[in-house]
Amino acid sequence: MSNPSTLRVPIDLGDRSYDILIGSGLLADAAAFDGLPTSADALIVSNTVVAPLYAQRLAERLATRHRRVLQVVLPDGEAHKDWQTLNQVFDALLGAGCDRKTVLYALGGGVVGDMTGFAAACYMRGVPFVQVPSTLLAQVDSSVGGKTAVNHPLGKNMIGAFYQPQRVLCDLDMLDTLPDRELSAGLAEVIKYGPIADMAFLDWIEAHLPALMARDKAALAHAIRRSCEIKAWVVGLDEREGGLRAILNFGHTFGHAIEAGMGYGAWLHGEGVACGMVLAADLSARLGLVDAAFVARIERLVAAAGLPVQAPAMPIERWFELMRVDKKAEGGEIRFVVIDGPGKAAMRPAPDALVAEVIAAHTAR
Amino acid sequence: MSNPSTLRVPIDLGDRSYDILIGSGLLADAAAFDGLPTSADALIVSNTVVAPLYAQRLAERLATRHRRVLQVVLPDGEAHKDWQTLNQVFDALLGAGCDRKTVLYALGGGVVGDMTGFAAACYMRGVPFVQVPSTLLAQVDSSVGGKTAVNHPLGKNMIGAFYQPQRVLCDLDMLDTLPDRELSAGLAEVIKYGPIADMAFLDWIEAHLPALMARDKAALAHAIRRSCEIKAWVVGLDEREGGLRAILNFGHTFGHAIEAGMGYGAWLHGEGVACGMVLAADLSARLGLVDAAFVARIERLVAAAGLPVQAPAMPIERWFELMRVDKKAEGGEIRFVVIDGPGKAAMRPAPDALVAEVIAAHTAR
Repeated sequence: MSNPSTLRVPIDLGDRSYDILIGSGLLADAAAFDGLPTSADALIVSNTVVAPLYAQRLAERLATRHRRVLQVVLPDGEAHKDWQTLNQVFDALLGAGCDRKTVLYALGGGVVGDMTGFAAACYMRGVPFVQVPSTLLAQVDSSVGGKTAVNHPLGKNMIGAFYQPQRVLCDLDMLDTLPDRELSAGLAEVIKYGPIADMAFLDWIEAHLPALMARDKAALAHAIRRSCEIKAWVVGLDEREGGLRAILNFGHTFGHAIEAGMGYGAWLHGEGVACGMVLAADLSARLGLVDAAFVARIERLVAAAGLPVQAPAMPIERWFELMRVDKKAEGGEIRFVVIDGPGKAAMRPAPDALVAEVIAAHTAR
Repeated sequence: MSNPSTLRVPIDLGDRSYDILIGSGLLADAAAFDGLPTSADALIVSNTVVAPLYAQRLAERLATRHRRVLQVVLPDGEAHKDWQTLNQVFDALLGAGCDRKTVLYALGGGVVGDMTGFAAACYMRGVPFVQVPSTLLAQVDSSVGGKTAVNHPLGKNMIGAFYQPQRVLCDLDMLDTLPDRELSAGLAEVIKYGPIADMAFLDWIEAHLPALMARDKAALAHAIRRSCEIKAWVVGLDEREGGLRAILNFGHTFGHAIEAGMGYGAWLHGEGVACGMVLAADLSARLGLVDAAFVARIERLVAAAGLPVQAPAMPIERWFELMRVDKKAEGGEIRFVVIDGPGKAAMRPAPDALVAEVIAAHTAR
């Protein structure tokens, strides 16, 4: 790396290994692209919010590496994370006659990353792609682990693939333009890594929350690196989500139900996860796995990060209906990620009555 | 296997290895299903032609292994091999609340197999599936090798995945109801394995063509086994189509252009390949790789199998336009699978003028 302050997190997945680079000014740094596949064509996939800010900068960098640099700009938001939007990527690739060596660049948040990754997995049965996540949420979470997908009207991320990028470029400068609400949503996934894996990191987050919310670059770089390291460790042990990897879904069973129940886009993913973590921590306490002080600590941190701790009002049958389509469910039984003592997660079913109690205790009236 | 006459072709792909079983009465043979994943749900994906003939028989067999056996019946034919039809499979799975252990059974020809395999690759990022190919073409070819896909308006099989089945069950009894035209189309892919890999097999096919066309079970079983063995050998060396595997596409560059140019469904895939093999053999001769007698031999066998040896009339620019979107093309250069001496294939570009000569020489006037 030409820039000595750039951090590198290696993701070790055998012949699908790749690096996450974290630093300022990466888009302008030729060295950050060293070793990526060159080919006749590259396609930048972005959205209507991010493209005007950063697509030109990335296109100029790629013009030194590819004969043609094409762009496709998708509508913004989870509501457009569907097959119809994905097909715009295929239309662009086939319309321009792009071959199976074409490199896709995902420039945007988690939605752009998930859709571009899935497009790369499927186009001519697989082309290389690079993640350039523009949000904190995507930098700490959705750009790591190879999960790609689109939504189906009956469920979130139901159609997808496990497909690894060639590299992830986390340019911290892109976070300067991120709205406060999205910064907070990203912090939800950062906070998550504490209770499930690393209580020392939770201490660090509590101590550095003001710096993180003020977008201090050094604090953000450390938070992203540590989150990616923990995720990399988990994904390295369980790439295809046989078991352990599911602990990364702490807060997500409740969170997905909130997102789907409110209509995609009303709640940000990170907001659903944040509130879901409070509920899952409480469920853990009611199962006798952690004490009430632990639940209060999670709730306090979530609130301090500008995130919701109260679930929206939904009929209880609707909650269960939504949670039963969760991908972790098996044979109709919902399985929850719970905290099995601070810093350690586990997956288990829970009695419906207990789950209903948890939801009632955290629903605004 | 309970039935001693059932043939077994093991496909060795490490932790994605599986067996092809070839025999009569497999659908009714409980032993043919031994070791396949059991789970709460199974989904049979079939089409309007095959479902009325065989879905009930398969459903009865699966009812002993799964709590629910669901069915989805797709419209028949290459014209429906698209995302809209694929989505019917996702709708069925999600509508019934099927989890990620659900086993998909592809009961039909190549189109059903390709779409079911792709649906299995994508549903919740991957569920197990079993191929039950009902046509000779699917039994010898499209059910082996893990290629799954749907078409895009701008190109055939452009959106897909490499995804291996748990098993392939080739029940020879299903060939009894196959129309003659489709039997011939399947023979095209059988014939292909001679010139690219095994001239002794080509001798055998010539000697047993009457038996094959009379649907003699022993002859068909041998033809399917040998085709699968050769394909398995090639795919084992090159699962992701880096190079060698492309030789399986002998006749396909011309053939795909014919299929796409005439509108999917007007020519059967095997018919396009058959005619394409004659053109590719002639191209090989004009490149000095084989002699005229070899071309005549291929053409004679193709015709004897009831397959077309004359290409349809299309403007030459249209031919090149269609061939340039072939997945083997790189940087706009078309690459052809040629016969580099009898029994040995190679991939190479060819001068446009020579290609045009070949097309003109084999086009009906």
